[in-house]
Amino acid sequence: MNRSVLAPLLAGAVLVPSSALADEGMWTFDNFPIAKVNAEYGTHIDQAWLDHVRGASARLSTGCSSSVVTATGLLLTNNHCVAGCTQDLSTKAHDYYTHGYIAHARQEERKCAGMQAEILAAITDVTPQMQSAGRGLTGGALVKARTAASANIEKQGCGDDPRFRCQVVDLYHGGQFKLYKYRKYSDVRLVFSPGVQTAFFGGDPDNFNFPRYDLDSAFVRLYENGAPVATPDHLKWNASAPVAGEPVFVSGNPGGTDRQLTVPQLETQRDLQIPMTLVQFSELRGRLIRFSEESPENKRIAQDMLFGLENSYKVYFGRLFALNSGDLMAQKQAQEAALRAKVSQLNLGPDFGDPWTTIARAQTDLAALYLPYRMVEGGPSGSDLFRYARSLVRAAAERQKPSAERLPGYSDTQLPLLEKQVLDVVPVYPKLEQQLLEFWLSKSREYLTADNPYTHLLLGRDSPEDLSAKLAQSKLGDAAVRKQLWDGGWAAIQASKDPMIQYVLRIDPEARKLRTEYDNRVTGPVSAASEKIAKARFAAYGDTIYPDATFTLRLSYGKIEGWTHNGTVVPPFTYFKGLYERATGKPPFQLDPRWVAAKGSLNPDTVFDISSSNDIIGGNSGSPLINARGEVIGAIFDGNIYSLGGDYGYDPVLNRAVSVSTAAVSEALRKVYHADALADELAGS
Amino acid sequence: MNRSVLAPLLAGAVLVPSSALADEGMWTFDNFPIAKVNAEYGTHIDQAWLDHVRGASARLSTGCSSSVVTATGLLLTNNHCVAGCTQDLSTKAHDYYTHGYIAHARQEERKCAGMQAEILAAITDVTPQMQSAGRGLTGGALVKARTAASANIEKQGCGDDPRFRCQVVDLYHGGQFKLYKYRKYSDVRLVFSPGVQTAFFGGDPDNFNFPRYDLDSAFVRLYENGAPVATPDHLKWNASAPVAGEPVFVSGNPGGTDRQLTVPQLETQRDLQIPMTLVQFSELRGRLIRFSEESPENKRIAQDMLFGLENSYKVYFGRLFALNSGDLMAQKQAQEAALRAKVSQLNLGPDFGDPWTTIARAQTDLAALYLPYRMVEGGPSGSDLFRYARSLVRAAAERQKPSAERLPGYSDTQLPLLEKQVLDVVPVYPKLEQQLLEFWLSKSREYLTADNPYTHLLLGRDSPEDLSAKLAQSKLGDAAVRKQLWDGGWAAIQASKDPMIQYVLRIDPEARKLRTEYDNRVTGPVSAASEKIAKARFAAYGDTIYPDATFTLRLSYGKIEGWTHNGTVVPPFTYFKGLYERATGKPPFQLDPRWVAAKGSLNPDTVFDISSSNDIIGGNSGSPLINARGEVIGAIFDGNIYSLGGDYGYDPVLNRAVSVSTAAVSEALRKVYHADALADELAGS
Repeated sequence: MNRSVLAPLLAGAVLVPSSALADEGMWTFDNFPIAKVNAEYGTHIDQAWLDHVRGASARLSTGCSSSVVTATGLLLTNNHCVAGCTQDLSTKAHDYYTHGYIAHARQEERKCAGMQAEILAAITDVTPQMQSAGRGLTGGALVKARTAASANIEKQGCGDDPRFRCQVVDLYHGGQFKLYKYRKYSDVRLVFSPGVQTAFFGGDPDNFNFPRYDLDSAFVRLYENGAPVATPDHLKWNASAPVAGEPVFVSGNPGGTDRQLTVPQLETQRDLQIPMTLVQFSELRGRLIRFSEESPENKRIAQDMLFGLENSYKVYFGRLFALNSGDLMAQKQAQEAALRAKVSQLNLGPDFGDPWTTIARAQTDLAALYLPYRMVEGGPSGSDLFRYARSLVRAAAERQKPSAERLPGYSDTQLPLLEKQVLDVVPVYPKLEQQLLEFWLSKSREYLTADNPYTHLLLGRDSPEDLSAKLAQSKLGDAAVRKQLWDGGWAAIQASKDPMIQYVLRIDPEARKLRTEYDNRVTGPVSAASEKIAKARFAAYGDTIYPDATFTLRLSYGKIEGWTHNGTVVPPFTYFKGLYERATGKPPFQLDPRWVAAKGSLNPDTVFDISSSNDIIGGNSGSPLINARGEVIGAIFDGNIYSLGGDYGYDPVLNRAVSVSTAAVSEALRKVYHADALADELAGS
Repeated sequence: MNRSVLAPLLAGAVLVPSSALADEGMWTFDNFPIAKVNAEYGTHIDQAWLDHVRGASARLSTGCSSSVVTATGLLLTNNHCVAGCTQDLSTKAHDYYTHGYIAHARQEERKCAGMQAEILAAITDVTPQMQSAGRGLTGGALVKARTAASANIEKQGCGDDPRFRCQVVDLYHGGQFKLYKYRKYSDVRLVFSPGVQTAFFGGDPDNFNFPRYDLDSAFVRLYENGAPVATPDHLKWNASAPVAGEPVFVSGNPGGTDRQLTVPQLETQRDLQIPMTLVQFSELRGRLIRFSEESPENKRIAQDMLFGLENSYKVYFGRLFALNSGDLMAQKQAQEAALRAKVSQLNLGPDFGDPWTTIARAQTDLAALYLPYRMVEGGPSGSDLFRYARSLVRAAAERQKPSAERLPGYSDTQLPLLEKQVLDVVPVYPKLEQQLLEFWLSKSREYLTADNPYTHLLLGRDSPEDLSAKLAQSKLGDAAVRKQLWDGGWAAIQASKDPMIQYVLRIDPEARKLRTEYDNRVTGPVSAASEKIAKARFAAYGDTIYPDATFTLRLSYGKIEGWTHNGTVVPPFTYFKGLYERATGKPPFQLDPRWVAAKGSLNPDTVFDISSSNDIIGGNSGSPLINARGEVIGAIFDGNIYSLGGDYGYDPVLNRAVSVSTAAVSEALRKVYHADALADELAGS
């Protein structure tokens, strides 16, 4: 479809050639285009600057980014990055998710379940070891060999030192493998959350729609041995007003992009994966919205899940409309043709073959396996009970094997975080669980059809309504029960009478078979072919390209700027005064009473949110916006509507990142929240 | 995308060239390929046969088809075609929708609100008048002129005779215009419904998934002046077992197909209209499912709407995956190229121009207007209160003008049915209305975005939750209130304090402007261009083509047969015994207790449902399946999963129609329902 046709909905990404132009790129810290950026922006970035920023950037295991902003382990991130924590800390009596949380003293800082912070300490190239591990292998054998090699390299890298986490990272789709060694902090405590009314003012309607007026910021603190961690290597807090045109950098962990996929892979997303995801998300969304309307308590227990679902929905919706733009696909086709033309002129050896055709053929297998794999091996989205049971059952089974022979996710270096995520205490809501399980069983039957063997596996002759009610009676919501099963291993699992454990035990053999089949027919062939394409791309374009995002640390650059579309100029800043103008008194445009009370004392001209040209994507949430002096001046929390096509390419004209300013945070901390200790700590940074 | 990739989900339609092959085609009664069919099937169809079948085929204003099956006005249709009626007749105490309804005597036959039956009496060609009315006009002027010409032709055709309804039908997208004159019956009464448990056994999971085991049949009776209508011209009821391979005909009203659209029009459906429809339907579906779970009464009041929504969802889902099949689009492109190549060799005159480009360009305007038009002029799906208010407001305004100058739908010949649909007594459920209105307002804000002028128009500074609650307090659920407003005309409308009337009055000027703009930029240009393409197609292929479906009477032919896919053979029949095997005791696979009780007395080998190769689509529901002797042997109620691509083309290998057999109906009437009077009436037909 012609791009202009969809423009009213969403402009598709305007792609640029394979080597990056303008402010494009999510660059690794060992291949940042220092000279190019300094030349373009007149900055003085050097290796020391990069090392400093890297050392003050922390990945959060909950899928976000953050930065160290004081010497006593304080991290700046987004409110929506700690929303799972405020949700988990809440009770019927205290809804911190909605109203926020302020620790006025250290002893009020409260542990966030499942949250681990990781600071990248070292990058080592392990490409030769990883590529030789897979040499000559195909299909599932390749996947297994790579999994084993990763486990061994990670083990060698970190040993048994509990202060570190090692992770082999696949970059450029097999073009490079790097060992990322992180200093990890598994005791992360909540310091400040403004609550959703202020952090997510405008709600879903305003999400991805700049101009926005959101204080989507929060603070957590790193602890070790019960005390805050000393972090001399932190970013300086600069709360003065940012300036349009100023060069800015974003250091964080973009979750994933698909810019280097082949055209048939994009077609599979467009024609199968994304439509199926959108319709399922939409229906679940509808169920949860109505569920939330039934009572204040239902609303409370479902709110974080509903936020996450609506956020993801909008992302996929944007991606679909970007892929449906004929311009994007035409450019992808042209890029692919150009690369293949170059390749035909290079001598890449007799083994190169035709990896593009291999990937195209694998799409047929992917489609054939897609629904069973998604429904059976994927399991019910959002169900904690299922996730616990699956992790407990598999961990018990896998721990009986040598580390290198286990399923991905269960090697010795991966178990500590999994154990934390299984055993940390969080509330589980059986009523909500029942809804999620019913939805999953019902959609499995619908899309696999009633007579499919996998439907029989999941449902037997039961109904989704009845079976989900039985499974929701599982006692796995009790952390002590999980601990007993984790410690008891395979014998305890087999002896368990818990309905969810028994259910997962029953379906697991078929789920594992599906995973094996998927590895054999899809993951393996695509990995081998992608690696060849990556080599071809390096041969054609050298190191002027950046790898697709993989939720590992990247640096992007750009400047503070708005954009112009169809003659409409969108300036790069919003101000506090705009929030008050936008408030209608009705949710989600309703002000927190503290902001109503503080109106007279706040500087109405405080810069609130910022648009900049940095190339970011989901996972960058909470990333610091950094000026050329290495000071933090904001925290990324959103993109504009055009950034939704950013999964496939960067559009320098329209794609914008959105941050909340440190100026707004400091002003609000003092005038709205009277959190002076925190404000002082930041001011002294 | 390659067809084989999507095959596990849904095979795309295999298209055939522009002139019909095999059992393809939804033929008008004045252009049925008699000789071809007789030659192929050894039948003896002649004009008398056609006239007889036409005279015994009745369109239902509720969007279905039916056939006259006895001499006393009895119509056979589907249970799902009278489900709105059983829903409306139900109360908290009597749920006829679920449990069915049997009139054991004439006085128990109950009027179905809003239902009118129409038997096609005559077809007259009015192409010259309609085409000359539009000559030289473009855009909205063309739309207006055509609307006026239709109103005048219809008025001339039927005068003020209340026994008839006249309708100008656009065939071949402007290639022909015919005046269809119907004998109409506006008092239609419910005689028999088996209830949803038996008519829709297997529920949504089995819908469009043959083999099925559904008694989706029902009977209504035509009344005039309080007495049953004499209908000597009826189909003979043949309850003997059908035979595989037997030639069969379907006479009914397929609702709409898009087989003659241009490729850019199909792309607009694929990339914009269908995805948007699917995500909205999915979310509403989720809301209604959860709403239904809240109480038996909620379930009761939402059940027919939920059925309709899920049925439509599946249709659109199938259409999307058919369009996403690269095979289908490639064949459409090839067909279009072939037609254009032919056209370039024909001399179609200097005015022919390039209608394909006109249509392609109009897609940009369509996309720009799509969301406002859908949300503002389209209004909230399913809301009776909004529908009443919109009809009352517009009828009052339009009746002040001469008939030919009114909006489509409000001319003198169209008003009687509209009046019936507005004034007939049906229950309105404020709780359900609130849900539908909230959903509509919320999605309008989401997709138009919060700052869009149309969002401000619809919502002001209110929230969807609060505004919908206010609007749901409308008193338009009371038929007497509607009658007073209908009779009171414009003055009564303007004086009304009803919140929904006031709301619709307020937004109507903008909604009308949108309609005008849409006519100017989309409907008008596309109509003019489509008419040219239709002329080109006639010039190239003569009358060997059939028009796209338009919910007008068509005849399709074929034979009783199953299909083979990937080596799996699906036979053409299911039997009563299969129902009992499929029953699990859990909804929707739970037997009606009457069927449990009757199991011993029923012949287990009774043919239940039938697969045949007839080319049908939604709107054909309730159509008679007719043997070569002109006897009714079944009622169409479904298609197989491959038939969902039938909107775009007919696949002779896989596309199948599904009927319930008269054999099953007769056996069940006697043995399960003990409806002997009805069974006797049928047996004596």
